[in-house]
Amino acid sequence: MLTARYLLRALRFCSSAPCPRHKPSAKLSVRDALGAQNPSGERVKVQGWIRSVRSQKEVLFLHVNDGSSLESLQVVADSSFDSRELAFGSSVEVQGQLIKSPSKRQNVELKAEKIEVIGNCDAKAFPIKYKERHPLEYLRQYPHLRCRTNVLGSILRVRSEATAAIHSFFKDSGFVHIHTPIITSNDCEGAGELFQVEHSSKIKLPEENFFNVPAFLTVSGQLHLEVMSGAFTQVFTFGPTFRAENSQTRRHLAEFYMVEAEISFVKSLQDLMKVMEELFKATTVMVLSNCPEDVELCHKFIAPGQKDRLEHMLKNNFLIISYTEAVEILKQASQNFTFTPEWGIDLQTEHEKYLLKHCGNIPVFIINYPSALKPFYMRDNEDGPQHTVAAVDLLVPGVGELFGGSLREERYHVLEQRLARSGLQEAYQWYLDLRRFGSVPHGGFGMGFERYLQCILGVENIKDVMPFPRFTHSCLL
Amino acid sequence: MLTARYLLRALRFCSSAPCPRHKPSAKLSVRDALGAQNPSGERVKVQGWIRSVRSQKEVLFLHVNDGSSLESLQVVADSSFDSRELAFGSSVEVQGQLIKSPSKRQNVELKAEKIEVIGNCDAKAFPIKYKERHPLEYLRQYPHLRCRTNVLGSILRVRSEATAAIHSFFKDSGFVHIHTPIITSNDCEGAGELFQVEHSSKIKLPEENFFNVPAFLTVSGQLHLEVMSGAFTQVFTFGPTFRAENSQTRRHLAEFYMVEAEISFVKSLQDLMKVMEELFKATTVMVLSNCPEDVELCHKFIAPGQKDRLEHMLKNNFLIISYTEAVEILKQASQNFTFTPEWGIDLQTEHEKYLLKHCGNIPVFIINYPSALKPFYMRDNEDGPQHTVAAVDLLVPGVGELFGGSLREERYHVLEQRLARSGLQEAYQWYLDLRRFGSVPHGGFGMGFERYLQCILGVENIKDVMPFPRFTHSCLL
Repeated sequence: MLTARYLLRALRFCSSAPCPRHKPSAKLSVRDALGAQNPSGERVKVQGWIRSVRSQKEVLFLHVNDGSSLESLQVVADSSFDSRELAFGSSVEVQGQLIKSPSKRQNVELKAEKIEVIGNCDAKAFPIKYKERHPLEYLRQYPHLRCRTNVLGSILRVRSEATAAIHSFFKDSGFVHIHTPIITSNDCEGAGELFQVEHSSKIKLPEENFFNVPAFLTVSGQLHLEVMSGAFTQVFTFGPTFRAENSQTRRHLAEFYMVEAEISFVKSLQDLMKVMEELFKATTVMVLSNCPEDVELCHKFIAPGQKDRLEHMLKNNFLIISYTEAVEILKQASQNFTFTPEWGIDLQTEHEKYLLKHCGNIPVFIINYPSALKPFYMRDNEDGPQHTVAAVDLLVPGVGELFGGSLREERYHVLEQRLARSGLQEAYQWYLDLRRFGSVPHGGFGMGFERYLQCILGVENIKDVMPFPRFTHSCLL
Repeated sequence: MLTARYLLRALRFCSSAPCPRHKPSAKLSVRDALGAQNPSGERVKVQGWIRSVRSQKEVLFLHVNDGSSLESLQVVADSSFDSRELAFGSSVEVQGQLIKSPSKRQNVELKAEKIEVIGNCDAKAFPIKYKERHPLEYLRQYPHLRCRTNVLGSILRVRSEATAAIHSFFKDSGFVHIHTPIITSNDCEGAGELFQVEHSSKIKLPEENFFNVPAFLTVSGQLHLEVMSGAFTQVFTFGPTFRAENSQTRRHLAEFYMVEAEISFVKSLQDLMKVMEELFKATTVMVLSNCPEDVELCHKFIAPGQKDRLEHMLKNNFLIISYTEAVEILKQASQNFTFTPEWGIDLQTEHEKYLLKHCGNIPVFIINYPSALKPFYMRDNEDGPQHTVAAVDLLVPGVGELFGGSLREERYHVLEQRLARSGLQEAYQWYLDLRRFGSVPHGGFGMGFERYLQCILGVENIKDVMPFPRFTHSCLL
């Protein structure tokens, strides 16, 4: 596994000397085979699935893909190899010589000496058809098979690269990774939209809870990260979060991933926004450099124009306006809104869209929201007459809200009063404790990972960037 | 954030030239301050929590920790700085000059010019007491505060490093990372021990499900990884898994993390075992090299002797014996077992312990288990008269079973018959589909991440390697 690249290098040395005839072929991934520099007949073995077959009079061309890259490896075989089993979707093992391709369309091709069909593909029943570009909506019906198409393959490779890039970004910046809990007895931001968890045999006999208390699926790791930010000055988590919302929009899922970070000794929203912008840009640059073909496929076939929009976001500094300024901009707009803009209202999708357009489609941070709109833990700005808290949302073109964050209320007495007003003082005694023992100013943010992927790839529906999407009325597999 | 190290380097150049008097101090983590080579009075700012205070006639010594390393930074101050607020647990910001320490106990110390107390610590109420080494059982009562001790700090840093090392291992080996679903309509390996998920308002009115079907928390990402292994030849996942088991042992949690991998075109258990051993060894070597002090702390105070045991595991090749051989070894043992060893029984903890001792405390793979003991998806060895499947478990000293894996049944008709025998054919039609369209021999494994941490650190109870442990009757925070 680890050694395919080294094997190929070793083979290159070997190929100048006469090779023993029956030396076993080195197993190579398609990606490594395609990346071979000046191949000159090294014997290799490649395994994968047939993506196309072209049969000419004397020659047979196959394209074999193994998921290691978007591009397939061209296999050239004598027509004597031709058989009905060598069909689209079948799995094969091909042994032969890796050579420079005479065609301009690829650098490398595999001259087959042996082709073995491993598993046939029942083409009639296979919902993915040869040479057809199926719409994403169609593919959603087949969550167990759609990964075998070019487009889902590319999206999933990008997802994997972005995951790795996010872990790298935080590790290189000195953050400690924390697994915040999935099952929690907190109901953090409100009741109605939670999933409850119970032993499957208890679900009809609710007299006793497995955990003694009602337990829910987490909606955010924030409060648990705050626990850790009393010992580590930089922490992050990257895991699943849940909303039991009865909504079927292109931007919502019942199960989705969040990247959350918490930073101690942070005194201003500026410090937080700097990290958010760095995270967005560094991750995107890494993804673009590690899987350019996969991103390009999406930009080309799914979202024409997205490439330019993304470059525009990357090369400009993100903007910052206050909530109050945002409302003023909306009030002065010539556009008619369904929801009349007014200080104190929640910004709606139509408002977000207008603001982004107004800002020249550069991502924009909106800061200092009305206290009444935000949860108890956000730091009071103690301003007036319009009372705000130190909250920040990042809006990006195409997806709207991508990040949300705030400074947290670190002052014991201020927090105590706010909790008392909501009757939460007892339930959050542990949270108050964090402020009794060496409290520090701190703040953090969360980024919706699927929305991030939608943003860089231009994929319209969030269900297409999640391997197994869960939403109201649907939990396939 | 990103730039602390660069700042320090820049400062070093600056220190040879005369520095302007009121230049703002560079903010440094304790780790970066401690790592400074030949400091010569650079002005820096360090923030953290006081871990110790020693007041002498004319000098005050503080140790400040910020979670970036086990070691704290010694701050030396004029006694005029002394105040009651400078106490254990308080948070502080210290500005001063970074200098070479005259003492042999540390290389570097910070000569304070300004000390600001950020947050006081109510010492009487604080359950963590100055200079006391609290037992892990005691600390478990305070999940929101225990991360502020040396030992939990070390365990959590090791957990973070191990997480990064596992991601690196798979990425460098060409695996694609997949987020397998947390909520699933599958109940994979059996019913009784699942958590069911429902909208919190529905839990008392079970007439309609949120997802239309009963939904559970995942016990394994295997089947979903198998979906992906029909398009990518190497995939992995690393996420939470759940068991609603009513057990309170030192090895079980209701919520825990699993590292799972699935590899296509794998024809023998040997290929799988090679990856398992590489994963264990490569990850461990990386952890030992990236946080040696943290590992050493555990080895020194929690598990004396563990260092040697771990080195013994790393330097030897893991052993392989068949289940049948294992039973023979147990039968010939002079020891009396509670469960009499006999072909066909499940291996019990007492058996595992004996086998490991018999193998010289080297990790041992047990392969080819009785078919009757294992789930439907494991590949039939088609042997006789004792019918086995191609399953593998890895036993390691101290924790017992660390990995479990198998080749999967990739043959459509064999799998179909097995599903039909269990009446599962309809529910697993999608799983059969994977074998209708380009099926390939494949296999995979799962590693319990908390058990892995127990194994390298020698931590006796699994609850101490999980940031927020969940088990029967307990879901704190």
